[in-house]
Amino acid sequence: MDDDEVGPRTGSYRDAGVDIDAADLAKARIARLAASTHGPEVLRGVGHFGTFFQAPGEDSPWVLVSSADSVGTKILVANLVGRHQGIGVDLVNHCVNDILTAGARPLYFLDYFATADLNVDRLESVVQGMTLACVDAGCALVGGETAQLPGIYRPEAYDLAGFIVGAVHRDRIVDGSAVVAGDVLIGLPSNGLHTNGFSLARSALGLDGDAQDAHRRLAARPAWSERSLGDLLLEPHRSYLPVIAPLLGSPTIHAMAHVTGGGIAGNLARVIPDGFEAVVDVRAWDVPALFRAIELAADVSEVEMYRVFNMGIGFVVVVDAAHAVDLLERLAGARRIGEIRSSLPGGTARYAGPSTWSDAGAVPDEVRDGA
Amino acid sequence: MDDDEVGPRTGSYRDAGVDIDAADLAKARIARLAASTHGPEVLRGVGHFGTFFQAPGEDSPWVLVSSADSVGTKILVANLVGRHQGIGVDLVNHCVNDILTAGARPLYFLDYFATADLNVDRLESVVQGMTLACVDAGCALVGGETAQLPGIYRPEAYDLAGFIVGAVHRDRIVDGSAVVAGDVLIGLPSNGLHTNGFSLARSALGLDGDAQDAHRRLAARPAWSERSLGDLLLEPHRSYLPVIAPLLGSPTIHAMAHVTGGGIAGNLARVIPDGFEAVVDVRAWDVPALFRAIELAADVSEVEMYRVFNMGIGFVVVVDAAHAVDLLERLAGARRIGEIRSSLPGGTARYAGPSTWSDAGAVPDEVRDGA
Repeated sequence: MDDDEVGPRTGSYRDAGVDIDAADLAKARIARLAASTHGPEVLRGVGHFGTFFQAPGEDSPWVLVSSADSVGTKILVANLVGRHQGIGVDLVNHCVNDILTAGARPLYFLDYFATADLNVDRLESVVQGMTLACVDAGCALVGGETAQLPGIYRPEAYDLAGFIVGAVHRDRIVDGSAVVAGDVLIGLPSNGLHTNGFSLARSALGLDGDAQDAHRRLAARPAWSERSLGDLLLEPHRSYLPVIAPLLGSPTIHAMAHVTGGGIAGNLARVIPDGFEAVVDVRAWDVPALFRAIELAADVSEVEMYRVFNMGIGFVVVVDAAHAVDLLERLAGARRIGEIRSSLPGGTARYAGPSTWSDAGAVPDEVRDGA
Repeated sequence: MDDDEVGPRTGSYRDAGVDIDAADLAKARIARLAASTHGPEVLRGVGHFGTFFQAPGEDSPWVLVSSADSVGTKILVANLVGRHQGIGVDLVNHCVNDILTAGARPLYFLDYFATADLNVDRLESVVQGMTLACVDAGCALVGGETAQLPGIYRPEAYDLAGFIVGAVHRDRIVDGSAVVAGDVLIGLPSNGLHTNGFSLARSALGLDGDAQDAHRRLAARPAWSERSLGDLLLEPHRSYLPVIAPLLGSPTIHAMAHVTGGGIAGNLARVIPDGFEAVVDVRAWDVPALFRAIELAADVSEVEMYRVFNMGIGFVVVVDAAHAVDLLERLAGARRIGEIRSSLPGGTARYAGPSTWSDAGAVPDEVRDGA
């Protein structure tokens, strides 16, 4: 998912805090259309990163959790660098993380790869990445569809969408319903932009104009990094399944959010129930230099940065306060990033920080010259 | 699926009779990569229009059947006519028919809609179509993803991919394994091109050049039709679920094929077991005038026409000979179009007809002036 994306249309089609405008009205109409197809097998109100459907069979205790996603304009950076394996990893891990928020483990995955001109080496690299990520997730890559559509895609361009099916026992669904005031927000570090904010990042970093110039910029190492800008940007989306899997089924996990378009608060808001708010303290972790470099180059507000990017936190676990310390020790790199408070009606999330947003998180000096 | 498409990459990645070339070698490599992710839950060798995965739960007798598909360049005709609801119907029905070949009924559906510039009315029309088709199929439209990616899509273009999950009881899977010599091929009529062959059709009918000229051609009625060319081309892909559903579970149904890219024989070959061949008699039905008009305008061989288009037969049921007459009476518009014969190793399918292909199916005189 990218900042250009309109985003997911799940069973609830609940919005992640975006202003009501024409597109939102259309989304509401679309949601009503989709709802007209829902029978009792569609479970509603149980999370918003995936869709929930009763598994076949009388009295099956299993719920199928699915998600559709795409990689967005990170693909354009991969095209410039000429490296596509990570895009396959990105797509699978994005989907794995989405259904993980409900406590679901992946079962299988299908992809849709469409392009103007089929380059089989490129396709094979993408499939290699999907294969690696599927093996890591214990997920079967069962099939896909390849389309060559020059009238629809720009020359040399391709798009990649993925569909995941996972399952969770109905007694182990994580859906935010157990959230109470005092719960602790545990943030897990991201390893880069993941798959969000690439349109803004490309524009800010001068990657959306002349290709030769973009090549040069991507090959260069920013002053604050040992790695090239291309490597930093293409770092594949991290999967949180390995660290979260041992916790699945534990009643101490009250909600989980995957930080995609909409940022930390925008995605937390999707799983916080009515009457509560998640308050994220932006001083609780150091924002990685890559985000600060984009912020400086883009000259956008810090509020906008936190809306578009993960800012260093890729997944949030809302846990029982009594077990927070234990979990913080068990989860590598985890930070306490905030808490749940009682609130006016309507589950929500917001940031807390210094008195002004511009003070939230110091920008390291070396970043100012970078990127 | 379109003739431009490379086609489905299912669990078996088996090819529908296309020549071995670089793309096929890449497909073989890709198939090996995907196979490395398959555990025992992935059921192989049970049909080739969908993927098969054991439903969750100890000893569940249910198998999840899934398919990913897209509409291809029929979308470009919809753009010219300015009517998009049928595209949503096309996508859902294509997927419904794919999993139906295994005896599966649909459970739920997700879509991926991506475009250069989001036109919410257009998106809403597409979703309306998906909704109508989902309601007809008893399938829940549970969600989707919308992406706005101007760097990837051509201006005004969009692409639509879909993902269906259905289920079949393991004792009722239709997979071709019961096929024997003497079985009868029953063909069900298509209602147009469905979603295949639009690149060739657009080129043949002069729809891929100047937009004003294409508009004029699409608005005109061919001499052999009461309907405009646009209406004929955009007729939504027929769903065969309503006519096939009453037969599901009957042991008289030995195999089913959905006629998409690859044509009747190409798709039959996907479900015919080793040692048998499906012989399709092209004299058994009248090829609709639209196909003949394309053939004349395109100046391609009849062999190529039967490889690219459904030629009037959209779905084939392979049945026990003893029950063929009964089924022919029960299935509206059904025709006996051929039979199963013993063959050399390797399941296959071919056409039989008059001594030369050019005689196979007379071209009505009035078609020659049309389109």
